[in-house]
Amino acid sequence: MRIAVLGGTGPEGLGLAARLAQIGESILIGSRSAERADEAARNLRSKLPPASIVGLPNAKAAAEADVVVLAFPYEGIEPILADCAAAMDGKLVVDTIVPLKVDKKFFGVEPPSEGSAGEKIQARIPGAKVVSAFKHQSAHHLIDLEHAMEGDVLICGNDEAAKGVVAGLVRRIRDLRPVDAGELRNARVFEAMTALLLNINRKHKTRASVKILGLP
Amino acid sequence: MRIAVLGGTGPEGLGLAARLAQIGESILIGSRSAERADEAARNLRSKLPPASIVGLPNAKAAAEADVVVLAFPYEGIEPILADCAAAMDGKLVVDTIVPLKVDKKFFGVEPPSEGSAGEKIQARIPGAKVVSAFKHQSAHHLIDLEHAMEGDVLICGNDEAAKGVVAGLVRRIRDLRPVDAGELRNARVFEAMTALLLNINRKHKTRASVKILGLP
Repeated sequence: MRIAVLGGTGPEGLGLAARLAQIGESILIGSRSAERADEAARNLRSKLPPASIVGLPNAKAAAEADVVVLAFPYEGIEPILADCAAAMDGKLVVDTIVPLKVDKKFFGVEPPSEGSAGEKIQARIPGAKVVSAFKHQSAHHLIDLEHAMEGDVLICGNDEAAKGVVAGLVRRIRDLRPVDAGELRNARVFEAMTALLLNINRKHKTRASVKILGLP
Repeated sequence: MRIAVLGGTGPEGLGLAARLAQIGESILIGSRSAERADEAARNLRSKLPPASIVGLPNAKAAAEADVVVLAFPYEGIEPILADCAAAMDGKLVVDTIVPLKVDKKFFGVEPPSEGSAGEKIQARIPGAKVVSAFKHQSAHHLIDLEHAMEGDVLICGNDEAAKGVVAGLVRRIRDLRPVDAGELRNARVFEAMTALLLNINRKHKTRASVKILGLP
């Protein structure tokens, strides 16, 4: 499976690319800049010698991939959609985006009219199978391949098979567990929880994560 | 400390009253109906023989208490405020309310313009010290005193001392841990998380809870 990570040169994207490369997936790091994509791919390959990691402009990465992970800041949605929506049509699209809003050191969300980044992307690419996931994993922890990840990867989406593919990837990443939270509308809660975690992090000077207890 | 639980004859209120009585607090169960309050108090006393548990109409319970726990459905806020706002002025008010909205078996929230039930109550009783807490504990598990509670009690509020009192109560309830999430605005996330947990419960046929990992 070829997985494109758009925004793959940013901290969250790079961390996800590293973890997905580590489990043997073929990674296309997408960036607005072909040079930065190439440089990030070279750096990552040097850390993970047998891995297949290539850097490409976002649109080319999306076009060549089977699965597209969106890991850029919320503000990037419009330009990336303009560039890559056609390339993502019909594909599994993993949304990790949070419409964060910081107000005097307080973290909140400023959700779009659709309710969440995940729902917005789904509305704009109706043929895509959007799965929201990885909204609570610290970029700092993901990129440190020695770090034992804690907490669950909450997953939601309207296509059961697509969620199954994402859950399968998560299960293969060391220490992570997928939790299916149901339909895509739950993405708005995932996004609000990211803001909550950032407030908790700031208060407790840590990088916290969330675990769901009591699952069968 | 005398703790009133308004809406204390409902499942969540009764569960909280039971747990708080169990740790030795003096409990005033408040209800719209003096008869139902009295009956619930009698039932609870029979399960917890040495406990001090009295049933009263909501307004009287609020007036006689040092701490007032709000454990009625969201729709009860307006009538209870009309009845009891003056009695709660200046007091520690523990808000456990969630503005839930069920749409074809999907759980969501319909927050008030203030952002959350907690913020609405604080806006309406500016002199109260509102702490939002206990939004994720299953009524079914609380009322079963043999059940080992799982998950954390997320707490938020704008008065540090008031949060400290609530955290102290939580710490004395077996198996529960308080997590200070910061200022009261976070209550909107707590409330959305309740809806998420209900969607997870429905999907996985369980009663899930949430734990924060990575705290110092």
